[in-house]
Amino acid sequence: MTLQTLKGFRDFLPSEAKKRQYVIDILRKTFESYGFEPLETPALEYEEVLAGKYGEEGQKLMYRFRDQGGRDVALRYDQTVPLARVVAQYQNDILLPFKRYQIQNVWRAENTQKGRYREFLQCDIDTVGTPNLFADAEAIAVIAKALENLGVKDYKVLINDRRIFQELIRNKLIDESSLVLVLRAIDKINKIGEQGVLDELGKLGIDENQRKLILNTINNLLPDDEFKKIFDYLKEMGIEENKFEFSPSLARGLDYYTGMIFEVEIEGYDVGSVAGGGRYDNLIGMFGNKPVPAVGGSFGFDRLIEALESLDLFPKDLQTAKVLITSSQDNIQKALDAAKNLRSNKINVEIYPDNEAPIDKQLKYADKKQIPFVVLFEGEKTVLKDMTTGEKSEPSLEEISKKIVL
Amino acid sequence: MTLQTLKGFRDFLPSEAKKRQYVIDILRKTFESYGFEPLETPALEYEEVLAGKYGEEGQKLMYRFRDQGGRDVALRYDQTVPLARVVAQYQNDILLPFKRYQIQNVWRAENTQKGRYREFLQCDIDTVGTPNLFADAEAIAVIAKALENLGVKDYKVLINDRRIFQELIRNKLIDESSLVLVLRAIDKINKIGEQGVLDELGKLGIDENQRKLILNTINNLLPDDEFKKIFDYLKEMGIEENKFEFSPSLARGLDYYTGMIFEVEIEGYDVGSVAGGGRYDNLIGMFGNKPVPAVGGSFGFDRLIEALESLDLFPKDLQTAKVLITSSQDNIQKALDAAKNLRSNKINVEIYPDNEAPIDKQLKYADKKQIPFVVLFEGEKTVLKDMTTGEKSEPSLEEISKKIVL
Repeated sequence: MTLQTLKGFRDFLPSEAKKRQYVIDILRKTFESYGFEPLETPALEYEEVLAGKYGEEGQKLMYRFRDQGGRDVALRYDQTVPLARVVAQYQNDILLPFKRYQIQNVWRAENTQKGRYREFLQCDIDTVGTPNLFADAEAIAVIAKALENLGVKDYKVLINDRRIFQELIRNKLIDESSLVLVLRAIDKINKIGEQGVLDELGKLGIDENQRKLILNTINNLLPDDEFKKIFDYLKEMGIEENKFEFSPSLARGLDYYTGMIFEVEIEGYDVGSVAGGGRYDNLIGMFGNKPVPAVGGSFGFDRLIEALESLDLFPKDLQTAKVLITSSQDNIQKALDAAKNLRSNKINVEIYPDNEAPIDKQLKYADKKQIPFVVLFEGEKTVLKDMTTGEKSEPSLEEISKKIVL
Repeated sequence: MTLQTLKGFRDFLPSEAKKRQYVIDILRKTFESYGFEPLETPALEYEEVLAGKYGEEGQKLMYRFRDQGGRDVALRYDQTVPLARVVAQYQNDILLPFKRYQIQNVWRAENTQKGRYREFLQCDIDTVGTPNLFADAEAIAVIAKALENLGVKDYKVLINDRRIFQELIRNKLIDESSLVLVLRAIDKINKIGEQGVLDELGKLGIDENQRKLILNTINNLLPDDEFKKIFDYLKEMGIEENKFEFSPSLARGLDYYTGMIFEVEIEGYDVGSVAGGGRYDNLIGMFGNKPVPAVGGSFGFDRLIEALESLDLFPKDLQTAKVLITSSQDNIQKALDAAKNLRSNKINVEIYPDNEAPIDKQLKYADKKQIPFVVLFEGEKTVLKDMTTGEKSEPSLEEISKKIVL
């Protein structure tokens, strides 16, 4: 038997798992600081709950099978359809507006060649039950705040409205062939102004009439009041003005958006956006046959990890144990007393689990695991070895605690 | 379509999800304070990795299917076999002894009538790579400590050695029909002493010779030094003596144990043990064809939650938001400033997301969600309403922070 994980599935050994946990903890804390509450839904659902909700592509990528009881079941494909089910199923228990976050794995039989995984973590926040644009702005703000809490300074939130895009296509103001170039020109509106955009469109061979129609569509349709309101809220929420901008070319893949859409990019990380979301007023109500407005956002967890890695934003002190206490048959009690003392100061301590192993083996273990401090017992003395400097000292346990916490 | 989850699968709405998260956080912190590090393995594995590892019963209960790529796959059934795979697969990256914890869902197509679930969380700690009994004692101690950190005062760790049990059966000193009664008598050895046990066995009609052989087997086989060592370690680790005892009748279901086994019961919770584990020196090596000693323990998460619930040990302040700030179109900026101030003091704050909703609706929302404090803006005044007492006051934001943290 070859020992391996399935293509697109991953083990996370402690060094990786700790980084993931570090990020999850900060996301959770940030989400909760805005009053978003945790929700969990099962990994397996009746297939009919999920079927047809993700388009043709989704239907193909969904993990589906018949269980022992003959039920057609499917693995969680995203967290939005389960949210819709939950909101309908527990409509008497769930108070609207309902602000929830959900951090669970989803499974998709993706083509892994594109650097995609088949099991990956989704981190969603959503506010269900109000059309108020405050919730739109808050969805963006909480994601921006989470990035800031992770140490990301240079990010940009691109904001659009799904309706603008739809209208340009519907009125045949953009044809498929020039779509990308036209949108790219429109996108510069923040930097070069309306006349600049008109000039750029001219360079693309679009006649004057058409140019003006395009700009008018944007100006008319750009739900002016709505954008202004969202932008004002963002400012009032403490998001710096240079952190968000109108981006008319932003489309986002999913069909279900009905209003504001956004994506978040991190400067210096060019693989793609690390978060995105928008308003989707027709999805949540689908199980209950009544419209339930909703808006939310989601982190691409793997991209976020990759971005933090590339920006060197992970703390250096993610080691679990901060101290390794060496042990031998003779000094068990001393080792345990020291561990107890340090743990009572909230310091994670590992006692080397094999007290028959030679001390140099124990020191090597600490070194390889990058445990920063080692406690040794030399005769009557308790010695602290700083594994970074190699320095030895004989502090009291209290002094050790202070040293390690600092 | 009937909106429902599959039998044995559960949604966790925020009130439940918060309790689960509270317990997971304490388990993680406790495990880490002893130097156990996190590990994650995939939900899906090649079926051949898991097949045949869980006996006939396990093979039946495992969720298995053929994926889109024609691979035979299975959902995670426990965390021990995946641990064995990981230890073999990454033998050049994983340093032994390897202390890991793992908190993930497993899936079993159990008979749900017995109050069992088909998706449930397992919380495992294991020390892989040393036969040292210190690790056996530490596995028990870290679980005991986790219970104490959850506020459980009265628990009992029952400890046995798989070898005693096997030997009694092998030597035909107990026959199947009297098994339970004999073991129950032997179990009283801590309370009534050896003579007491002999008397009890006599009452069961077991002749004197047989009675003495039973007791001799226990006394001889009871790996005296080993038990003494584990018990001594437990005492030195700060576990009170009345919290653990020898329990010769303890069997534990799994076949793979090879030495010490234990279970943990909580007084006042009679459904069954909330944790258990033991030494299993032959399992982890199975993929690498060399023996790798291991010892560990695991919480039954659902039982633990149930026990904490029945003992009323969940904190009363698990609400996510501690303050609801009411909002109207006129006071957005004030509301946001207050939220920012309180959040900077690490207080979770929710601004009511619909600033067009009447204030009494917003107050009802806070009440139903048991948010303890509400901030109202009355004219120029910022008013704090204590939702428990109904009292209103006009403290500064700093005073509000202090009040809420206390």
